Amino acid sequence: MAGERKRSYDPVALRGRILDVAAAAFQAHGYHATSTHDIMRKAGVTGGAFHHHFPSKKSLGLAVVRERVAPEVEQTWIAPVRTAKTALKGVLDVFEDIATSLDAQGKVFGCPLNNLTIELSLADPEFQRAVGEVFDGWRKAIADKARTDKAGAPNADGIGALVVAAYSGAMAMAKAEQSAEPLRLCASQLATLLRAMRP
Amino acid sequence: MAGERKRSYDPVALRGRILDVAAAAFQAHGYHATSTHDIMRKAGVTGGAFHHHFPSKKSLGLAVVRERVAPEVEQTWIAPVRTAKTALKGVLDVFEDIATSLDAQGKVFGCPLNNLTIELSLADPEFQRAVGEVFDGWRKAIADKARTDKAGAPNADGIGALVVAAYSGAMAMAKAEQSAEPLRLCASQLATLLRAMRP
Repeated sequence: MAGERKRSYDPVALRGRILDVAAAAFQAHGYHATSTHDIMRKAGVTGGAFHHHFPSKKSLGLAVVRERVAPEVEQTWIAPVRTAKTALKGVLDVFEDIATSLDAQGKVFGCPLNNLTIELSLADPEFQRAVGEVFDGWRKAIADKARTDKAGAPNADGIGALVVAAYSGAMAMAKAEQSAEPLRLCASQLATLLRAMRP
Repeated sequence: MAGERKRSYDPVALRGRILDVAAAAFQAHGYHATSTHDIMRKAGVTGGAFHHHFPSKKSLGLAVVRERVAPEVEQTWIAPVRTAKTALKGVLDVFEDIATSLDAQGKVFGCPLNNLTIELSLADPEFQRAVGEVFDGWRKAIADKARTDKAGAPNADGIGALVVAAYSGAMAMAKAEQSAEPLRLCASQLATLLRAMRP
């Protein structure tokens, strides 16, 4: 607007920067192993500014799940499956895209959702609900696509659950082996299963 | 032996007690969130005795993987699959036994191997190797059983990988939802796949 002065302190950008730094640190080192002090330092923010946006480490953790992990699952998994020709094609393409990017990266940090679920969901019902909602949306997107492929597919919900479980578990094995091989092996088996339910 | 005096300090029992306490604490709270001080206190051992057996927390973590987590995978998964009539029957029985025990327990702590893998394998190659060996033995046992069912089954290795991945991921979802439902849903889908490869 004319007359509005540009603010040198932009709270939205600052909040976003804190979330970016926190999401990366949780993914690389885990939630408990990351201190809020580390995050403040890396994001270049004062304690006052940090606590204005995130009164507790937990509020930051929940925001990372909802505003960084959930959109990543949406972008990496849900959108490609939704727009693919079939559920099978969508799922296999996502597995292969992720395997290829792990090869290029040379390091497997694991699935951000899985990592935070394992670390936080037992001890805290709010974290449990936050990660549970992301898993549910992910499973549902694959199930819906399977139902579109084959009207009334009776096992669409099971397929959604299995694909998400197989991916999460394969990423855990990939993290243990620091290799994309478990993803490719599992994808080829899921292909057999998904082909069997084709119309 | 005649003349041998009973020792009131039994180092083997003490070492075992430390491992039991540590395995339970890592499973309930995670490795990083558990201090060696907590473990000494709960096991009722002095710092000297503790450090005699485990010079570092890492040496304790590795021993938990090798002497508590690996035998648990052997007992819960590998032995029942090996002695089952078929791979399909073995895998489905294990999924159902675990789902039933989660129902009874009313709380899902998750898969001990998966929990430690997610927390530790990225940062440390020795942990990586230790958990990787457990995953490998587990996958191989299922693959071997699938090969016995159907001589030369070309996708036995893939089936071993998929079953372990699906179980690990389903346990992560079960932890997020604090419910055994993801295990049962995934088991029914795996049944379809394993039936398709029957002789």
